[in-house]
Amino acid sequence: MKQILLLNGPNLNMLGIREPGIYGSMSLQTIIEGLEKTASGLGVALETFQSNHEGGLIDKIHAAFGVKDGILFNPGAFTHYSYALRDAISTVGIPTVEVHISNIHKRESFRHTSVIAPVAIGQIAGFGADSYELGLRALVQHLERVEG
Amino acid sequence: MKQILLLNGPNLNMLGIREPGIYGSMSLQTIIEGLEKTASGLGVALETFQSNHEGGLIDKIHAAFGVKDGILFNPGAFTHYSYALRDAISTVGIPTVEVHISNIHKRESFRHTSVIAPVAIGQIAGFGADSYELGLRALVQHLERVEG
Amino acid sequence: MKQILLLNGPNLNMLGIREPGIYGSMSLQTIIEGLEKTASGLGVALETFQSNHEGGLIDKIHAAFGVKDGILFNPGAFTHYSYALRDAISTVGIPTVEVHISNIHKRESFRHTSVIAPVAIGQIAGFGADSYELGLRALVQHLERVEG
Amino acid sequence: MKQILLLNGPNLNMLGIREPGIYGSMSLQTIIEGLEKTASGLGVALETFQSNHEGGLIDKIHAAFGVKDGILFNPGAFTHYSYALRDAISTVGIPTVEVHISNIHKRESFRHTSVIAPVAIGQIAGFGADSYELGLRALVQHLERVEG
Amino acid sequence: MKQILLLNGPNLNMLGIREPGIYGSMSLQTIIEGLEKTASGLGVALETFQSNHEGGLIDKIHAAFGVKDGILFNPGAFTHYSYALRDAISTVGIPTVEVHISNIHKRESFRHTSVIAPVAIGQIAGFGADSYELGLRALVQHLERVEG
Amino acid sequence: MKQILLLNGPNLNMLGIREPGIYGSMSLQTIIEGLEKTASGLGVALETFQSNHEGGLIDKIHAAFGVKDGILFNPGAFTHYSYALRDAISTVGIPTVEVHISNIHKRESFRHTSVIAPVAIGQIAGFGADSYELGLRALVQHLERVEG
Amino acid sequence: MKQILLLNGPNLNMLGIREPGIYGSMSLQTIIEGLEKTASGLGVALETFQSNHEGGLIDKIHAAFGVKDGILFNPGAFTHYSYALRDAISTVGIPTVEVHISNIHKRESFRHTSVIAPVAIGQIAGFGADSYELGLRALVQHLERVEG
Amino acid sequence: MKQILLLNGPNLNMLGIREPGIYGSMSLQTIIEGLEKTASGLGVALETFQSNHEGGLIDKIHAAFGVKDGILFNPGAFTHYSYALRDAISTVGIPTVEVHISNIHKRESFRHTSVIAPVAIGQIAGFGADSYELGLRALVQHLERVEG
Amino acid sequence: MKQILLLNGPNLNMLGIREPGIYGSMSLQTIIEGLEKTASGLGVALETFQSNHEGGLIDKIHAAFGVKDGILFNPGAFTHYSYALRDAISTVGIPTVEVHISNIHKRESFRHTSVIAPVAIGQIAGFGADSYELGLRALVQHLERVEG
Amino acid sequence: MKQILLLNGPNLNMLGIREPGIYGSMSLQTIIEGLEKTASGLGVALETFQSNHEGGLIDKIHAAFGVKDGILFNPGAFTHYSYALRDAISTVGIPTVEVHISNIHKRESFRHTSVIAPVAIGQIAGFGADSYELGLRALVQHLERVEG
Amino acid sequence: MKQILLLNGPNLNMLGIREPGIYGSMSLQTIIEGLEKTASGLGVALETFQSNHEGGLIDKIHAAFGVKDGILFNPGAFTHYSYALRDAISTVGIPTVEVHISNIHKRESFRHTSVIAPVAIGQIAGFGADSYELGLRALVQHLERVEG
Amino acid sequence: MKQILLLNGPNLNMLGIREPGIYGSMSLQTIIEGLEKTASGLGVALETFQSNHEGGLIDKIHAAFGVKDGILFNPGAFTHYSYALRDAISTVGIPTVEVHISNIHKRESFRHTSVIAPVAIGQIAGFGADSYELGLRALVQHLERVEG
Repeated sequence: MKQILLLNGPNLNMLGIREPGIYGSMSLQTIIEGLEKTASGLGVALETFQSNHEGGLIDKIHAAFGVKDGILFNPGAFTHYSYALRDAISTVGIPTVEVHISNIHKRESFRHTSVIAPVAIGQIAGFGADSYELGLRALVQHLERVEG
Repeated sequence: MKQILLLNGPNLNMLGIREPGIYGSMSLQTIIEGLEKTASGLGVALETFQSNHEGGLIDKIHAAFGVKDGILFNPGAFTHYSYALRDAISTVGIPTVEVHISNIHKRESFRHTSVIAPVAIGQIAGFGADSYELGLRALVQHLERVEG
Repeated sequence: MKQILLLNGPNLNMLGIREPGIYGSMSLQTIIEGLEKTASGLGVALETFQSNHEGGLIDKIHAAFGVKDGILFNPGAFTHYSYALRDAISTVGIPTVEVHISNIHKRESFRHTSVIAPVAIGQIAGFGADSYELGLRALVQHLERVEG
Repeated sequence: MKQILLLNGPNLNMLGIREPGIYGSMSLQTIIEGLEKTASGLGVALETFQSNHEGGLIDKIHAAFGVKDGILFNPGAFTHYSYALRDAISTVGIPTVEVHISNIHKRESFRHTSVIAPVAIGQIAGFGADSYELGLRALVQHLERVEG
Repeated sequence: MKQILLLNGPNLNMLGIREPGIYGSMSLQTIIEGLEKTASGLGVALETFQSNHEGGLIDKIHAAFGVKDGILFNPGAFTHYSYALRDAISTVGIPTVEVHISNIHKRESFRHTSVIAPVAIGQIAGFGADSYELGLRALVQHLERVEG
Repeated sequence: MKQILLLNGPNLNMLGIREPGIYGSMSLQTIIEGLEKTASGLGVALETFQSNHEGGLIDKIHAAFGVKDGILFNPGAFTHYSYALRDAISTVGIPTVEVHISNIHKRESFRHTSVIAPVAIGQIAGFGADSYELGLRALVQHLERVEG
Repeated sequence: MKQILLLNGPNLNMLGIREPGIYGSMSLQTIIEGLEKTASGLGVALETFQSNHEGGLIDKIHAAFGVKDGILFNPGAFTHYSYALRDAISTVGIPTVEVHISNIHKRESFRHTSVIAPVAIGQIAGFGADSYELGLRALVQHLERVEG
Repeated sequence: MKQILLLNGPNLNMLGIREPGIYGSMSLQTIIEGLEKTASGLGVALETFQSNHEGGLIDKIHAAFGVKDGILFNPGAFTHYSYALRDAISTVGIPTVEVHISNIHKRESFRHTSVIAPVAIGQIAGFGADSYELGLRALVQHLERVEG
Repeated sequence: MKQILLLNGPNLNMLGIREPGIYGSMSLQTIIEGLEKTASGLGVALETFQSNHEGGLIDKIHAAFGVKDGILFNPGAFTHYSYALRDAISTVGIPTVEVHISNIHKRESFRHTSVIAPVAIGQIAGFGADSYELGLRALVQHLERVEG
Repeated sequence: MKQILLLNGPNLNMLGIREPGIYGSMSLQTIIEGLEKTASGLGVALETFQSNHEGGLIDKIHAAFGVKDGILFNPGAFTHYSYALRDAISTVGIPTVEVHISNIHKRESFRHTSVIAPVAIGQIAGFGADSYELGLRALVQHLERVEG
Repeated sequence: MKQILLLNGPNLNMLGIREPGIYGSMSLQTIIEGLEKTASGLGVALETFQSNHEGGLIDKIHAAFGVKDGILFNPGAFTHYSYALRDAISTVGIPTVEVHISNIHKRESFRHTSVIAPVAIGQIAGFGADSYELGLRALVQHLERVEG
Repeated sequence: MKQILLLNGPNLNMLGIREPGIYGSMSLQTIIEGLEKTASGLGVALETFQSNHEGGLIDKIHAAFGVKDGILFNPGAFTHYSYALRDAISTVGIPTVEVHISNIHKRESFRHTSVIAPVAIGQIAGFGADSYELGLRALVQHLERVEG
């Protein structure tokens, strides 16, 4: 069974509270519960981790080395400047899908650029909580195709 | 039944021929056939249109006004400079999902920016032919949520 | 009798539909009808052409060579990137007035720059449908002055 | 009867002297006389003020508050850097049309940008002395439309 | 008794009129009256000067040389381009505190930069009329500390 | 009684040690003691937290949600790049005043820009330890005004 | 016999009319006739196509796939922004030589950059009608060398 | 006898007071007295005018039209942004030499650029009070050469 | 005996795993063991600390104040954006040598700039594990020379 | 008989050694021998000069004044920064064709710009040793056309 | 007697030949002869050196160390990029005046910037051959003032 | 025995004279003598060459082809703009270590970038004369490892 790590970056623990006009009113817990069902339906195992600490996320990515098959990652604001997270992902070499709840390409200009995306398989942005579900599907399909 | 328009921009008629290292070896026809099955499973109707002509794509978007419920759009290279297509989408106001086969965020720098994305619901990039399927799901889920 | 060509670029066929907060609720047909009256009052003939195709507009400009005395041109989104249209105008050497319905200088930054303006007599922007009428007057007065 | 303030910025008192290749050989006085006839034909009153002093122009704009219905403004070189004039116009909230004798969009690059335009109704540039007459028409039509 | 000069730049005479959503509805006169009470409480004398003329403000700063102990300065739009005012302040060497009613750091990008700030003690922005009172306190405390 | 959270970012625990030419020779402890007196005089409660960890500061801001009425924040070097802290403040929606000991606008160019300021009420910079006291006054006055 | 496609982009049908100071007074027809003689001398077949439509040129490039051995391309103004044409050339993988009549490197700055050149064998610019002949020789020599 | 106008811009009335490390300790009066001797030796008449008002300087330049043969101009900080002064000089067409006391090319980067220099004969910077004397010589020699 | 602190930033704990093409196949442990021998040979004591947490590295630098004589620092990806680490080093004033395993000047452009280098003695990059040994020698020689 | 000077800049003496993947394996001597045959066929005389010294190339260009009819120039890396060579060419006014072995428009970005091209007739890049032969033809045809 | 070194950079040996519209028709020899008379009048000795070789100019500057009292330098095109010449001047510490025949501030934008000026006393540009004479006076007056 | 070429660029012959605050007071001769001892200790032969001529350095690098095993290179100011030297090093393919006496990363911004570094093994900067010794060790260790 494929082991998937769901990583959420800074402020995502506050989902549902933070600017609902932009991020919707669903809590992270609700999203995770929905995603676990999807994971189950897709026949993969899902471990979830959220941190507001860049270092905590890096440690978790390192710990995934040799243990996880794929990472589903919403880096939050770290998306735009954490070269350390980028290096962590390329260090462990685990296939990673980057997701965003809001459409970062139509917000403030600093949000248009992702320093993570160049080391990810791909990026999904703008579909609210659905971005996670779509990202999980994308990741699982990628893993299946690579394995054959 | 929701009416979805699948739009493909320049050079996508050559899929499978063009740089398979980047775009994969699947033809557009094969992708569309797979997508029609997904559409059928999701209970939506799918019309497909490809053109290498910016004006042809704009005409098609205008024709969709009042007829289609959503657009799934891979603008190809027009992504990066066709402000006319951007205006076409905001003119008709039809919910649009932007998809890309390759991860545009890790290729040449001119490909990182989409002038379409700010008027789309969201963007999905990097998952090969799966980008289309993921985009269709994202679009249908969006339409269902909005309608309630 | 002076022969004037009224050219409208992409999406202007959708006027009255597109973002009325920005472009007003008048249709292109209504604008043209009003403009024909003005033309008639000014003693000039008016031919009208709209296209969403850059190439179609270029073909039309070429066809105007030796036939038309002036061009009244709303290039729509092509304003900002169509160097081919710019070259078409300088190729035929027909005096051209550039008009815009909205005040492009207060919208998104990509709209502030016109690649057409450097080969036009002048530019009029921001007066809604009046921009056309003002532009026609400006063009006719220019032609009269040059001829003496 | 609508009260219109015609404002001319720095060096426009020297019209007819200054670089006739760019600005024509007509003096400001001649332009004003022609404009007064147009104003009379349009049924509006015209007061004229020229100053080479940014502060003098700001004082005049403030004095127009509650007194004038519209401003016709050629800010001369202040167009490109006087954020104080921009604030003056947005402070009094009087509808303002920006006019230029030359086509600023085809001259030195510093002249392409207007810091005034974002707070004006619109901008007219390139038609010599006609720019004033066109601007007056644009302003009066705007005022009539708004009032209904 | 410390002599303080309160300088207000362009358009600040219109406070309460200008864009109340941004600048509040209090007039400059009301602000000054409140500030005079604060000055009295702090045991300092306050002279007030407002001008829409850059040159008038420079003349006033020169006149303060050897007469005033500190300057409280809201340069209005001159903040962003008046290198002449910047030089005036560094010429006379009078300690100066820069204040702004609105938070210039969250408005249009041209307002983010102050050419005055590098020659001021510090900058206070965003607290409405309170910015003046806070600025006066900051200035008086600075003067007391320097004198010991 | 209003509850105020005083947040200090990286290296501010070393105040008095670090570059006294720029930051003065007062320790953070001394500043806090003075600030507590001011808080007491203003009738507000003050809790203090310093961390060199971006994640620690974010956690603390989240914990303040529903508990604190205002935040007084010196983000230190995080001012210039921590979009995660910016998001934390806009997430919890607690009114925040940004303060800096030195005049960041006259130091190295990377220090001129604050990514925090656009989500703060305002910014105070350059008054040494007084910046904190001024910031606290600004915050309390803001809270009083809003509550009325 | 090698099959060569000569492609000419927008406005090149107007050669001899357009700005003879820059482009010379020779018509495209005259150039083509000369080029056919050169082609004949070099033992290659030449097909010619001109269009003002970006999409028309793309369609033609696609049609050349598997049929033509080389492309001689003057993209006109599309040189500077048509990423769709660039992709068309890299899609079909046909060796392409880019030619320009004028020396684009000494004209307006927007003309210095070619988005086509990175996917071409090389670029020849500035030799009037000779650029075509030189380009044809370069292309044929390249094809001969590769085949060896 | 050639009539020369010596113009001094903002803050130059404070010479000898302002930052003597940069501008020297000589007053403007002393410089003018020395310059009058040089003028006398060169057989030219010298009129002197200083203003902190951009508009005052423009008025003076206009008044020089048809009266003065040359202008010796130290625009002070207006050097870097007064396009209105630039236009004033090109309007009257009087040969102008730009002088600076300090070497503007080694100070803050905003001082490296002169918007006046492109309409001046030349620029002399960095020689303290000598810059004026050198500038006067340069101007007189220029006038003599042109007249022959 | 000189006390040296060896600091390693994010992802360096994964050396030997991460992109061996760029960073070599030696583990951090092996590098440290070699470095301890060098330290011993040079007669200095070496303490080692690695963290993926920016805040953890700052805390460690603070703790070194008054205790360590020099710092040998490979900041990893923090090199390029951690102004907080830069401030930490200038706060404690401990001589610091910056080292990099790869030649950062020939990799992605974001890696060319170090925000740490301006507060370091110097920088050594590109020599694999040798960079550490060279850095230690450089540091010790610097300390000896300063002490003399 | 036309006298042509073939100039080769820095490192071109090492052709065939230097990066054969980019520059091919032919030596400069071999290229020159081939070119001499072409020159002979075209009825022109060819003198050859190579130098790694910018000054040596300038001296040679000066010496060609009044002696040579045309220059065929591969400036090597000087292409991108030697404004002195650019001035040398415009000083002597000898028609010059710029050639490059590799397609500089698809290599590192610093190689895209030629400071020489604006003073040359035209530029030929990307055809290996053929670039020289094509350049010689272009030059001779240009000279013939100009002479008539 | 003060020893002055007159240095002329690349292409200045061709004065009178090169673009007389920009540089005048006087030869360098004629300029030097005039300058020697001025030097004699000022009581200083003048040695002259011209080279098209950057290295030759650097060698000459080094040789002037301890021998010359001042340098009068027209660096020609090296002005804009020779950081090596800049370092040579700051190495020997000999007071240097930079002169230019043309007004570099109104020519191509690359000519606006001097990398030499920041290490020179000052810069004189735009006065034709007079620039040398003015520069010599400026240099001698500077040396006299410093010696006092 | 490994043959090492020590190359020093412009102005380094003046070491000990030039700006001792930046470069120290040791002469190049002294540095070389020390370095020869180190070379001897490391069992390698050292040849030394200094030139202020870019072309001279290129010639020397070419002459090293097939003769030297490594180059230790302080390119002085050529570091920042000599693309010709960069090409010389990549042409001969001899392993090269770039060294700088001062920490170029904390000086003027033009010194932060090295055009040489991308073709070197690595860069060492900031350690005074020690930079040479460290560079020699780095080079010899690199050569030993490669040969191993």
